[in-house]
Amino acid sequence: MDNDTQGKEERHVARMQRKKEIVDQKVAAADQERGVLLVNTGNGKGKSSAAFGVAARALGHGLQVAVVQFVKSRTDTGEEAVLGRVPGIRWHVMGEGFTWETQDPDRDAAAARAAWETALGYLRDPGVGLVVLDEMTYAFKYRWLPLDEVLAAFAARPAMQHVIVTGRAAPEELIAAADTVTEMNLVKHAFKVGVKAMPGMEF
Amino acid sequence: MDNDTQGKEERHVARMQRKKEIVDQKVAAADQERGVLLVNTGNGKGKSSAAFGVAARALGHGLQVAVVQFVKSRTDTGEEAVLGRVPGIRWHVMGEGFTWETQDPDRDAAAARAAWETALGYLRDPGVGLVVLDEMTYAFKYRWLPLDEVLAAFAARPAMQHVIVTGRAAPEELIAAADTVTEMNLVKHAFKVGVKAMPGMEF
Repeated sequence: MDNDTQGKEERHVARMQRKKEIVDQKVAAADQERGVLLVNTGNGKGKSSAAFGVAARALGHGLQVAVVQFVKSRTDTGEEAVLGRVPGIRWHVMGEGFTWETQDPDRDAAAARAAWETALGYLRDPGVGLVVLDEMTYAFKYRWLPLDEVLAAFAARPAMQHVIVTGRAAPEELIAAADTVTEMNLVKHAFKVGVKAMPGMEF
Repeated sequence: MDNDTQGKEERHVARMQRKKEIVDQKVAAADQERGVLLVNTGNGKGKSSAAFGVAARALGHGLQVAVVQFVKSRTDTGEEAVLGRVPGIRWHVMGEGFTWETQDPDRDAAAARAAWETALGYLRDPGVGLVVLDEMTYAFKYRWLPLDEVLAAFAARPAMQHVIVTGRAAPEELIAAADTVTEMNLVKHAFKVGVKAMPGMEF
């Protein structure tokens, strides 16, 4: 090895040692153990699929998981076919489809209320480690559910229970109440350049 | 129902009818069927978990799935425990951990190269419907792999094969080559307010 390469390697090692110290300090400082409230919002792809990925993760650690889908766009999804079959998960496809499909606000509101009642049962059960409320934010956008009531139920849930809420345009009060918030932003999408919703990728 | 309420409902229905027409037109215009290249990047949570959610989705539609993890941060992940057991998936935890843990650039580069050789086998196999290359972008950042070679292999893959690449700071050429790109942005994270990496949520 020449001197140049050796110097470069030594600088890399020194930089990585500093980085490791910083990372280790941060890990040591994070010592609370409790359930967290996650919100996946934004106009990009991945809000629901990230929630299902975490559901798989939680199941793998032996947690009981409940999934409530507030907007029933279809019932032939691959995620339900696979994850809905894993012991420890309960999966509810509720809602009536996107509101521009139903064109009936009263039916939409009643469906959202029914989905919320199902969710509430899980939010009161300390045996349930993770509750996924998929596409719930639409219930706030269209005023099918009062946000106050939902946030109060989140606050009163069992201490070790995790909750994930997905959907576009999460309201500010929900973001304020959450522990972890990711905004999934659309940079580009295959659909816009004429690719069909491919099974296994989009549903 | 009074006139006001009725007027409001009629306006809602008219608005939703217009929305439905626009959505239906867009769906009709997207008529290509082919494999897509997805990139999940950004500094937020959900890049890998969204890829695993799509892996579940793909398995549910009967696709063969291969997962290659380029950065082995741990081998006790919940997603592997659950999804790694589903028939139709092959799961490879490769790499040597984050580079600030190994502090050895040569070992990191060799591990990335080995992971890429494994990935290449799948990228040449038309029987594989989805290839997940988890945390691959680090291989470009640290120059463990030449981006040109990787993009050429993506371009030469079977026509119906989907690929997902995850990781921070995806290079511009990769974003240009992709069909769908989501930037997962960190709005807030439980870790920063002192919550430990909770099993089932973070791994």
